[in-house]
Amino acid sequence: MDTNGRRERVKLHIYNKTDGIEHFHQDIELLYVLEGTLEVTSGEETVHLEAEDIFVLNANKHHMLNGSENVLFLQLSILYQTVSDVLQSGDVIFWCNSTNDKSERYEELRKILKVLLKHYVEMKGDTANFGHIALCYRVLDNLSMYFLVRTSDKEMLDEQDKFDERIRQINNYIRANYSQPISLKELADQLYLSNGYLSRFFQAELWDEFCGISD
Amino acid sequence: MDTNGRRERVKLHIYNKTDGIEHFHQDIELLYVLEGTLEVTSGEETVHLEAEDIFVLNANKHHMLNGSENVLFLQLSILYQTVSDVLQSGDVIFWCNSTNDKSERYEELRKILKVLLKHYVEMKGDTANFGHIALCYRVLDNLSMYFLVRTSDKEMLDEQDKFDERIRQINNYIRANYSQPISLKELADQLYLSNGYLSRFFQAELWDEFCGISD
Repeated sequence: MDTNGRRERVKLHIYNKTDGIEHFHQDIELLYVLEGTLEVTSGEETVHLEAEDIFVLNANKHHMLNGSENVLFLQLSILYQTVSDVLQSGDVIFWCNSTNDKSERYEELRKILKVLLKHYVEMKGDTANFGHIALCYRVLDNLSMYFLVRTSDKEMLDEQDKFDERIRQINNYIRANYSQPISLKELADQLYLSNGYLSRFFQAELWDEFCGISD
Repeated sequence: MDTNGRRERVKLHIYNKTDGIEHFHQDIELLYVLEGTLEVTSGEETVHLEAEDIFVLNANKHHMLNGSENVLFLQLSILYQTVSDVLQSGDVIFWCNSTNDKSERYEELRKILKVLLKHYVEMKGDTANFGHIALCYRVLDNLSMYFLVRTSDKEMLDEQDKFDERIRQINNYIRANYSQPISLKELADQLYLSNGYLSRFFQAELWDEFCGISD
């Protein structure tokens, strides 16, 4: 929140240290390493980012960041609802990890991030201007053009990912609609699940965690 | 509103005719004539726009548009609250009228509007994408950099304008805060007016109109 209570849809931070604490949030998080190295651990997997690497953490993905002593990185927190509203989908995932993919599309994204960073420095960190907002939306444009996962691509996901994915879908749907009461039936309809499946899902061990999420 | 109920903050329309009916709205309206001519009448004043002219109608300004038979123009409706939130001011006015000012800053704005228009045509009028939104914010960036009126410039406004201006301020303040109850005292404090002045203001003939506005 800024001083006016306005929640910025895309929020830029520059960090030179990490706390190493596992956490999660609905915001989509883009990380761009400027100096040093950064380890991103999510579940069993750890990704090692070096300078110029870009990585996107999707909504509600548990993660933990550990940077080297000289680490400097840019973080963009992207409000999930902004993306789901514009793309008109409750099911948005970006696959963006420059450590295992050296394609040119990362070069273009880096260029935009550098322009955004330059503008941010020139404005002395003031983000209450339309130039900054326009550049943030250019990042989102690039992400949605080149890194958005379509449903047909998802067959590659393994079973564990499918389960995680289901949790994300349900949580995202509730968040996107949480100003209105949602029945289990509506939720099941939206997510193409049977009412019975969803009831069982809610009776599983995730219930406690889920209650926490939807607080 | 689009089909999802999302109110676009900047909405682009292309028109090839006008209805000639006087109206007003809180949205700031940018007009850019592509072909033909367009007359914009606001109060006693009529501005004659030709191809390549740009004109901004400020929030709540009564106006009427009359185009030639071959008119083609772009209209950007800009949600007032978006501008007042980002600029952190309840008092935003743009002075943008290329018919009486031939300075280079209009050339830059025209360029951005042409890029926006090209993108819009390429996307076949689909505005639910981040590229379109980024370009709309570039227009807002240009407007706020080169066409925003600062309070110190306003001494040039004559008495009638000051009165119109006061109505706009009050209306804009109420709109920007209309989710919360507003007392006359708060309104007076925000607008640096005495409570008595504001009471008299509300008892004047504007009361009926004002009630309509704040519906």
